[in-house]
Amino acid sequence: MEESTIKNKKNTLGEVEKIVSLAKRRGFVFQSSEIYGGLNGCWDYGPLGVELLRNIKEVWWKAMTYREDVEGLDASILMHSRVWEASGHVENFTDPMVDCKQCKARFRLDVLSDSINEKKKDKAIADLKNDFKDNTVILEKIEGKLKNPEDDDPFNLLLEDVDVGKTLLFKLNCPQCGNANTFTDARKFNLMFKTFVGPVEDTGSVVYLRPETAQGIFVNFLNVQGSSRQKIPFGIAQVGKAFRNEINTKNFLFRTREFEQMEMQFFVKPIDDKKWYEYWKQERMNWFISLGMRKEKLRYHDHHPTKLAHYAKDATDIEYEFPFGWGEIEGVHNRTDFDLARHEEFSGKSLKYYDEETKEKFVPYIIETSAGASRSFMAFLVDSLYEEEVKGEMRTVLRLHPKLAPIKVGIFPLVNKDGMPEIARNIESDLRKHLKVFYDDKGAVGRRYRRQDEAGTPYCITVDTDTLSDQTVTVRDRDSMEQIRISIDKLREYLINKILIS
Amino acid sequence: MEESTIKNKKNTLGEVEKIVSLAKRRGFVFQSSEIYGGLNGCWDYGPLGVELLRNIKEVWWKAMTYREDVEGLDASILMHSRVWEASGHVENFTDPMVDCKQCKARFRLDVLSDSINEKKKDKAIADLKNDFKDNTVILEKIEGKLKNPEDDDPFNLLLEDVDVGKTLLFKLNCPQCGNANTFTDARKFNLMFKTFVGPVEDTGSVVYLRPETAQGIFVNFLNVQGSSRQKIPFGIAQVGKAFRNEINTKNFLFRTREFEQMEMQFFVKPIDDKKWYEYWKQERMNWFISLGMRKEKLRYHDHHPTKLAHYAKDATDIEYEFPFGWGEIEGVHNRTDFDLARHEEFSGKSLKYYDEETKEKFVPYIIETSAGASRSFMAFLVDSLYEEEVKGEMRTVLRLHPKLAPIKVGIFPLVNKDGMPEIARNIESDLRKHLKVFYDDKGAVGRRYRRQDEAGTPYCITVDTDTLSDQTVTVRDRDSMEQIRISIDKLREYLINKILIS
Repeated sequence: MEESTIKNKKNTLGEVEKIVSLAKRRGFVFQSSEIYGGLNGCWDYGPLGVELLRNIKEVWWKAMTYREDVEGLDASILMHSRVWEASGHVENFTDPMVDCKQCKARFRLDVLSDSINEKKKDKAIADLKNDFKDNTVILEKIEGKLKNPEDDDPFNLLLEDVDVGKTLLFKLNCPQCGNANTFTDARKFNLMFKTFVGPVEDTGSVVYLRPETAQGIFVNFLNVQGSSRQKIPFGIAQVGKAFRNEINTKNFLFRTREFEQMEMQFFVKPIDDKKWYEYWKQERMNWFISLGMRKEKLRYHDHHPTKLAHYAKDATDIEYEFPFGWGEIEGVHNRTDFDLARHEEFSGKSLKYYDEETKEKFVPYIIETSAGASRSFMAFLVDSLYEEEVKGEMRTVLRLHPKLAPIKVGIFPLVNKDGMPEIARNIESDLRKHLKVFYDDKGAVGRRYRRQDEAGTPYCITVDTDTLSDQTVTVRDRDSMEQIRISIDKLREYLINKILIS
Repeated sequence: MEESTIKNKKNTLGEVEKIVSLAKRRGFVFQSSEIYGGLNGCWDYGPLGVELLRNIKEVWWKAMTYREDVEGLDASILMHSRVWEASGHVENFTDPMVDCKQCKARFRLDVLSDSINEKKKDKAIADLKNDFKDNTVILEKIEGKLKNPEDDDPFNLLLEDVDVGKTLLFKLNCPQCGNANTFTDARKFNLMFKTFVGPVEDTGSVVYLRPETAQGIFVNFLNVQGSSRQKIPFGIAQVGKAFRNEINTKNFLFRTREFEQMEMQFFVKPIDDKKWYEYWKQERMNWFISLGMRKEKLRYHDHHPTKLAHYAKDATDIEYEFPFGWGEIEGVHNRTDFDLARHEEFSGKSLKYYDEETKEKFVPYIIETSAGASRSFMAFLVDSLYEEEVKGEMRTVLRLHPKLAPIKVGIFPLVNKDGMPEIARNIESDLRKHLKVFYDDKGAVGRRYRRQDEAGTPYCITVDTDTLSDQTVTVRDRDSMEQIRISIDKLREYLINKILIS
C-alpha cells in the first residue's frame, strides 16, 4: 500500500515540450523523416504510440458502429476532383497570402498581423481612418471590426476586408526585409495537396489528397444505404487520413499537415435535425468522459450563428484544455442537406432517399460528428500525464484508461532464478494471445514498475518466492499502487475482465 | 441437418466480374467517386468490406506484433524527399514511356508491345536483325532475348534494350493514329505521386506520396530500437496506405493506385540472414493457411538470381491463384544492409547497431515480409466464395474464417411476435458489446440464412417457440448448415470461444 505516501498528486499539464520529450523517449511519437532533418507537420507513431492510437480508433469504432443504426466505410484518399468542386473546397478552402515584392517572402495574412507590433498597428489604423475620414459607412465598418465581438484579431479582420484591406496593407513594412510599400495584393492559397494521376500533368488529371474524410461518406450514401438496407435515421462512420497543406503547423499533433479523422455522418429527416444534433452532441462528449478524460478539461464551444460555416445550421466544438489553451478535438455539426444537394447538382445523379412508409423522396439532413484521432491522441496523452512524489521520489505516470493503454500487463520474475522466470514465461505466453504484454526481468522491481507507469501499463504481475509454494502472484495497480495476490489460474479471467470488458 | 443435401459443392473461382458484382451488391467494395464516373485504380470499402479488411489487418497485427521480438510503428505517408533519393525510387521507380509526335498519345512500352499484332512484330524483328546483320554481338543479344527464359514478353525486352530499342521503335506505327516513324525516344516515367508542401511549388518543396511503407521503418530504425530497448534480432511492423501512379490499373483490387500494405522488417546479424529468411518464408505462408486459405491455391515463386531487385539477395513471392492466374499477395525478401547503408550515406547519420555482447557496431541485414492488405482481401474473398446446390436451390456462401467474417452472428426471431423479438433483442444487446452482430426479423428464416451465408456470417441464432418454454435457441453453422440447441445463458461463452479464441 503506497497510496498514502502519494504527495503533490497533480497533473502537470506542463509545457508541450515535456510531452514531446516523453513521447520521443518512450516511443510514442517521433518526428517524421527525422534523420533528414524532419518533415514539418508530419509525425510518426512509435511502438507505444501506435498501440495508443490503434486503441483510440478501435474503441471509437466499436462505440460508433457496433450499433444497429450505423454502418462502416473506408473510402479512398484520392477522389475525383469534381468531388472537391461540389464540396466547395476548390473555391473556398483557402488562406489569404501576400508576397513581398522585394525579398520574395510569403506570408499568410494573419501571420503578418502577428508579426507586427502594436504601436505600428495603432499607427496604421489611425492612418487608415484618416484616409476614409469622409466616408462614414467605411468608418463605421472599421469601428465595428475593432470592437472585435468574436475574439478574432481585429487587425487581421481589417486586412482581410475587401474595402480597406489593400489600403491597410500598403501602410506596413515587410517583417523580413523591412521595406515599405512592397506587398502584392492578398491572394487565395488553396490548402489542398494537389497531384496528378496518369502520365500527363495537366488540368484533366488533377486529383487532390482529401482534406477531410466526410466527402467519401456523402458520395457513397446510396451505395451504403442500398447494400445495407438501412432506413433513415442511420449513420455512416469512417476512420482515415486527411491532408492539409497548412502554412503554419504548430503545437505538436494539434495542427499538422497529415492527420487522422474519426467521422460519422448521420442521415435524418429534416424535421428531426435538432433532436439528433442534441443527441450526438451529448453522446460524443460522454465518449471522452467514459474513457477517463477529466470533465473540467472539457467544454462545448457553440458557434455563434454569424460565424457558422457555409454548410452549417448549428455547430459546436468539443474542446480540451491543452497546455497552450482550449482547442477543438471534435466538432458536431448540423450540415443540413447542403452536401447531398451539391453532389446531386454536380454529378447529375439523384441522392434522394425514398421513404417506404410515407412514399416520399427527399434529400436527408446530415448531423456530423468529426473527431480528430491525432488530436484525441494528444488530449489523452496530456490528460493522463501525472508527476507524483512517492516515498520521496518522483514518479511519472500515464493514467490511461485500461482500454487505451498501449501495454496492458507487465510481467516480472522477482529474481531471474529459482524457477521464477519459467513461471513468469508461462503466464506471459498464456496472456499474450489476448493482451499486449511486456516481459521484464532487468533491474530492481521498483524501477520496472516506474518504467511501466511511464508507459501507462495498468497492471504489473510479479512472480516471487511465495509463488513457488502457493501458485499465487502479486497484481499491482498502476494508479493506486496497491498490490493484491491472485492465484495464477484466476489471472487471465481477472485481467481480461478488468481490461477488455470494463 | 442439411449437410447431406449439399450437391456440387465447389468454389466457383468464377470471373473477376462475379466477385466485383457481389462486392458491390453486398457492400464489400464500391468504385471510388462512382457518382462522378469513378476514379480509375481507387476503390472504397463498404460496410461488409471495411469489417473484412479491418479483421485481416487486426489478425495480421496480432500475429506479427503480439510477440516479444516485433514492435509496431505507424509512419506518415508524406516523407522527406531525400528518403526517396536514398531508396532509389526517384531514379529507378519508373516505367519507360513513348509519345506519338503526331497524335500526342502516350504509351507505356509494354502496352505498346501488347497492342501490335504478331505478324507485324515478326516483320519488325526480321528488319531489326537485317539492320544488325554484320554485328554478331548484337545479333546474339537479340536471339537471347527472343528465347525468353523468364516469361517476359520478348518484343518488350527488345524495345527496352539500350542497343536496339530505339531502332526497333522506329519500325512501328502508332496504334492510335497509324502514322509511321512518329515515336519519341523512350523516356522514364516515375510512378510516385508528387505534390508540394508549403505555398510555393518549386523543387525545394516537392514531397512524394510513399510508394511503399518500408522506408518509414528504415528511417525510424534507431528511434524504435532505442525507445523499445530491443536487441537484434527484432522486427518493426507497420500497416498503412501506399500510392503508385500506375499507368495500367487492372484486375479489381490487384493493381490499384491506392492500396494498403502490411509490412514487417526484421533486423538480423548478417551471418543469420539465411536462417531468418527461411523462418519468415514459412511463417507467412502458414499465416494464410491458418486463416483457411486453400493450400492448393498457394505457392512460392522464388525469384531467379538474375531477376532479383537491386537491393535483394534472396526473394520469394507468396502467390495465390486468382481467376486471372497466379498473382503475388506477399513478398519475402532478404534486403541485406542495402537500405540502412543508403540512408546512412544520404542522411550522414549513423544507423549502426551496437551489440553489447560482442562490443561490435554494424549495419544489420533486413529480412522483409511485405503483404498486400488489399490483395489479401481479394484473395480471401475469392477463396471463400462457393456456389452450392442445396435442396434444389443455389446458395452463395462465403466460407470466411470466423476471425475474418465481417458479421459474426445473425440473430433471428422466428416470427415477429409472441415475445420472440424481446428475447432476440436481449441476446443481441448482450452479444453486441463483444461481437459485430446483425438482427433480422424480415422474411422467411431460410432467406435470412441465405443473406447471412452470402455475407460470410459464421453463426445464426434463431429464437423459436421452444425458446419460450426452455430458454434454448438454435445455433446454425454456416458451412455445415447443422443446427444445435444451446441454452441462452451459455450462448455468449460458446460464440466467443468459437469466434475470437479459435
